[in-house]
Amino acid sequence: MAHQQTAKKEIVGGTEETTSGVQRLVALERARRLLYPVVAVNNARTKYLFDNRHGTGQSTLDGIIRSTGILLAGKNIVACGYGWVGKGVATRAKGMGARVIVTEVDPIKAIEAKMDGFEVMPMLDAAALGDIFITCTGQTCIIRKEHFLKMKDGVILANAGHFDVEIDTKSLYSISQGKPARINANTERFDVVNGKKKKKLLSKGRVVNLVAAEGHPPEVMALSFANQLLSILYIARNYDRMDVKVHSVPEQIDQDVGSYALDSMGIKIDQMTVEQERYQHSS
Amino acid sequence: MAHQQTAKKEIVGGTEETTSGVQRLVALERARRLLYPVVAVNNARTKYLFDNRHGTGQSTLDGIIRSTGILLAGKNIVACGYGWVGKGVATRAKGMGARVIVTEVDPIKAIEAKMDGFEVMPMLDAAALGDIFITCTGQTCIIRKEHFLKMKDGVILANAGHFDVEIDTKSLYSISQGKPARINANTERFDVVNGKKKKKLLSKGRVVNLVAAEGHPPEVMALSFANQLLSILYIARNYDRMDVKVHSVPEQIDQDVGSYALDSMGIKIDQMTVEQERYQHSS
Amino acid sequence: MAHQQTAKKEIVGGTEETTSGVQRLVALERARRLLYPVVAVNNARTKYLFDNRHGTGQSTLDGIIRSTGILLAGKNIVACGYGWVGKGVATRAKGMGARVIVTEVDPIKAIEAKMDGFEVMPMLDAAALGDIFITCTGQTCIIRKEHFLKMKDGVILANAGHFDVEIDTKSLYSISQGKPARINANTERFDVVNGKKKKKLLSKGRVVNLVAAEGHPPEVMALSFANQLLSILYIARNYDRMDVKVHSVPEQIDQDVGSYALDSMGIKIDQMTVEQERYQHSS
Amino acid sequence: MAHQQTAKKEIVGGTEETTSGVQRLVALERARRLLYPVVAVNNARTKYLFDNRHGTGQSTLDGIIRSTGILLAGKNIVACGYGWVGKGVATRAKGMGARVIVTEVDPIKAIEAKMDGFEVMPMLDAAALGDIFITCTGQTCIIRKEHFLKMKDGVILANAGHFDVEIDTKSLYSISQGKPARINANTERFDVVNGKKKKKLLSKGRVVNLVAAEGHPPEVMALSFANQLLSILYIARNYDRMDVKVHSVPEQIDQDVGSYALDSMGIKIDQMTVEQERYQHSS
Repeated sequence: MAHQQTAKKEIVGGTEETTSGVQRLVALERARRLLYPVVAVNNARTKYLFDNRHGTGQSTLDGIIRSTGILLAGKNIVACGYGWVGKGVATRAKGMGARVIVTEVDPIKAIEAKMDGFEVMPMLDAAALGDIFITCTGQTCIIRKEHFLKMKDGVILANAGHFDVEIDTKSLYSISQGKPARINANTERFDVVNGKKKKKLLSKGRVVNLVAAEGHPPEVMALSFANQLLSILYIARNYDRMDVKVHSVPEQIDQDVGSYALDSMGIKIDQMTVEQERYQHSS
Repeated sequence: MAHQQTAKKEIVGGTEETTSGVQRLVALERARRLLYPVVAVNNARTKYLFDNRHGTGQSTLDGIIRSTGILLAGKNIVACGYGWVGKGVATRAKGMGARVIVTEVDPIKAIEAKMDGFEVMPMLDAAALGDIFITCTGQTCIIRKEHFLKMKDGVILANAGHFDVEIDTKSLYSISQGKPARINANTERFDVVNGKKKKKLLSKGRVVNLVAAEGHPPEVMALSFANQLLSILYIARNYDRMDVKVHSVPEQIDQDVGSYALDSMGIKIDQMTVEQERYQHSS
Repeated sequence: MAHQQTAKKEIVGGTEETTSGVQRLVALERARRLLYPVVAVNNARTKYLFDNRHGTGQSTLDGIIRSTGILLAGKNIVACGYGWVGKGVATRAKGMGARVIVTEVDPIKAIEAKMDGFEVMPMLDAAALGDIFITCTGQTCIIRKEHFLKMKDGVILANAGHFDVEIDTKSLYSISQGKPARINANTERFDVVNGKKKKKLLSKGRVVNLVAAEGHPPEVMALSFANQLLSILYIARNYDRMDVKVHSVPEQIDQDVGSYALDSMGIKIDQMTVEQERYQHSS
Repeated sequence: MAHQQTAKKEIVGGTEETTSGVQRLVALERARRLLYPVVAVNNARTKYLFDNRHGTGQSTLDGIIRSTGILLAGKNIVACGYGWVGKGVATRAKGMGARVIVTEVDPIKAIEAKMDGFEVMPMLDAAALGDIFITCTGQTCIIRKEHFLKMKDGVILANAGHFDVEIDTKSLYSISQGKPARINANTERFDVVNGKKKKKLLSKGRVVNLVAAEGHPPEVMALSFANQLLSILYIARNYDRMDVKVHSVPEQIDQDVGSYALDSMGIKIDQMTVEQERYQHSS
């Protein structure tokens, strides 16, 4: 979402879909430079529990398989980061028969990954073990020169996070002989100047599920777009009562999107009895 | 935690470990009857992600196996509720080879369960399919007369939630012939007055992991108690600056408990580089 | 493998890769029409444990995702058959977050599937529940008219077995209005003449992993081809001492292929101690 | 099964339940010392697929939890051996949230474990990593002095194989200070004379699921005993036509046991159509 002064007069509010976008808007709000109320669709549970986790989980592996044809069973897959994207990638990689290693900087996420059955170690140790590396952090330079130099021959590098900064491609170029060879539309081979030389970089370090596969499956986009639509309707009705800040998706919208999704899958659930409503309020 | 006026003078603050306890304290706060600041240890991530989920998940199945000797592989296990306890129970039951059915009243949790690979349906439908029923809700009368009457012969009923109210034992008595037979220390057999008669109730509907097994494994209690201890130290140092309300565990305490746990497991993790710290703040 | 009289003089032996091919050769042997010794590569453990299971498991889901873009998490996937291909498909589908239903005619495979945590039911019941159907049997007319008519709107039909006979496409044509619509290169939409009309047939009922994806990943083909090569060398050295029948791959070849594969993955394993060798022989 | 000359006249045949027992009988047969026909019940698929795998898998973890109260999630569990028992133990340990390492001497089983998503390494490497060690081999001295000396402080040693020979308790005694301390009925603590001293040995190295838990769940024993019973009836009717050797359980008995088990679980399966029967025979 561009957020420029010139647009101000016409715009009464906005919605934002991505983690990175919400971070930027929160920064604008803190700097008192936000111009109108914004609903952070990314923070709806019916968005991040499904889109960031299940959507990215499946489509990232899809992008890797389409680019390389590799068998995931038996491979060492390193998921860098254990936020919702990392959880999705790690869970699906395990489901495909891989041994999964997680790297983290947050101790709570790290121990969560460990108790979920994954190995946890520093990136420098993981670098020597991985067959496939997938960055899932939203951060910069997660995989960099020191890691490239420790990696085995023939490893695959893919990014499932945000921009093309998670894998430090600049330093990968700097330690490679000649220009990378183009193996196919989305795969380049770098010949690193040490003994274990071949590294395969997917989609130039851009998000592999968008570039090398077809992005999220429609089912998860439907959940996200439903949040978008209902949030826009909400803003249209309430913008003159809304503070100029980053708002959460109203809980009722989140619940409604969940209900519509269940309906579309033909799933019925229970409702609280009168007695249970009363019990909840009494306690 | 008793919260009585008489104790007031001696007490400068408190901590609370359980979901139910926190709910009651929040109710007291709303009624302006809270007497001193309380730290809700239950809400620390290093508490609920591990204690409520992994601790209860393992120990609930342990209690059921010790009481009944049943093979979990191939059984239909109904997890009533998909909060942290329900997630733990469902995940472990699946890990032991069971087919897991989840019931819920919250549409978002319901669709989360469905996308996690579980079946989701109303309790009345699940009643006819389950071999083992485990309540995980914190609510009352989750399994009641109408459900008992639809169940197969020989089903097992266990509670992993809070008090002995989730399984409506009163109505189970009312539809049974004679007194229940005591099969072993923690198992009673009810002969329900219809064709499919035997129901096995574990630990009289009290939480099965505490009564029929040995509660949480020490590793998860260590995490919870570390939060307790550090929260008490925090209160001791800060109580005169704390509002009389229910406080979250300070984020730094939560992080520290995670770090100590990783240390004790011999696990090292990464730290953000200077460049990454900068990137995070810039964006 | 063509097996014709004319070829006889030049040929001293053969190898066969597929389940179907081996069945045909065994039939020839029984009919005393086999002309030279054949080694059934398909029966090597380093073939069927990996190729039929892990290779087909991954590439079948790959073919379905490429053709339809569908999210597997939360879907009801019906695996028809629980041989090695069915085991692979069911395991991977579960790993991707699906609820998996298995159909079988063999009671032992059926109870194996049930104890592995899958639902087991007759095809007619599964027809009403599935979102995606995958035939894995090597048999004919597994999904037929009576099943099509019970299916939900919009289901996906794919074959991972052998020829294009597992899904009875002829009867699918017979109950559809007009010609099927071509959705993309490998997907046709049939409008069945009842209320729940759309069925999506992938790759015209031919094996979906070969037609809509790229077949097995190279790692599993390497195992199969290694068995082929070593079996051919074995025949070249031994054909004059071999009976004209279908032979198993010699155990030593199977073991060697396993060892080479471990080597290529950088994995070391233990060797029996002298004491253990002695213990094994003594008992 | 005792197999003594004196018993000969009264006995017309026998059945054998265990892997070890069958191995001994085969040895007797080879030495031409078998006195009557024996049916190897252990080799029935409805025995080993369920008893050795699912029965031992669950009850072994049960024995370990009862003896130690340990949380399995997040632990490094080493399964020594990847036969049916090892497969069961590894699968259940993973299902409980553990990171599982497999050791093997057979290259095919080793690569099978690797492709099933487990780590595979030599015992000496695994010794340094494991928190819990479970022997599943039927062999002798799988864990021995050199391994004990590399292990971390506080590790748990359990045997799920056959006799009390898999863990070399003699050498464990020899490197420990004083007599082991008895922690509880089934757990002894050895203080090994190096820095990382405490090792906890369960049930004196005897099979932990029989000693520290309650053996197999009744459901799997029912399958095994059904094979026993039907095999005895078979011998009673056919012993005068049976060669004096170790016989497999007749396929029809195996199938029947599977069918009875499905019936008892209320599960229906398909039957081949006439067309399918014909297709099978034609091909």
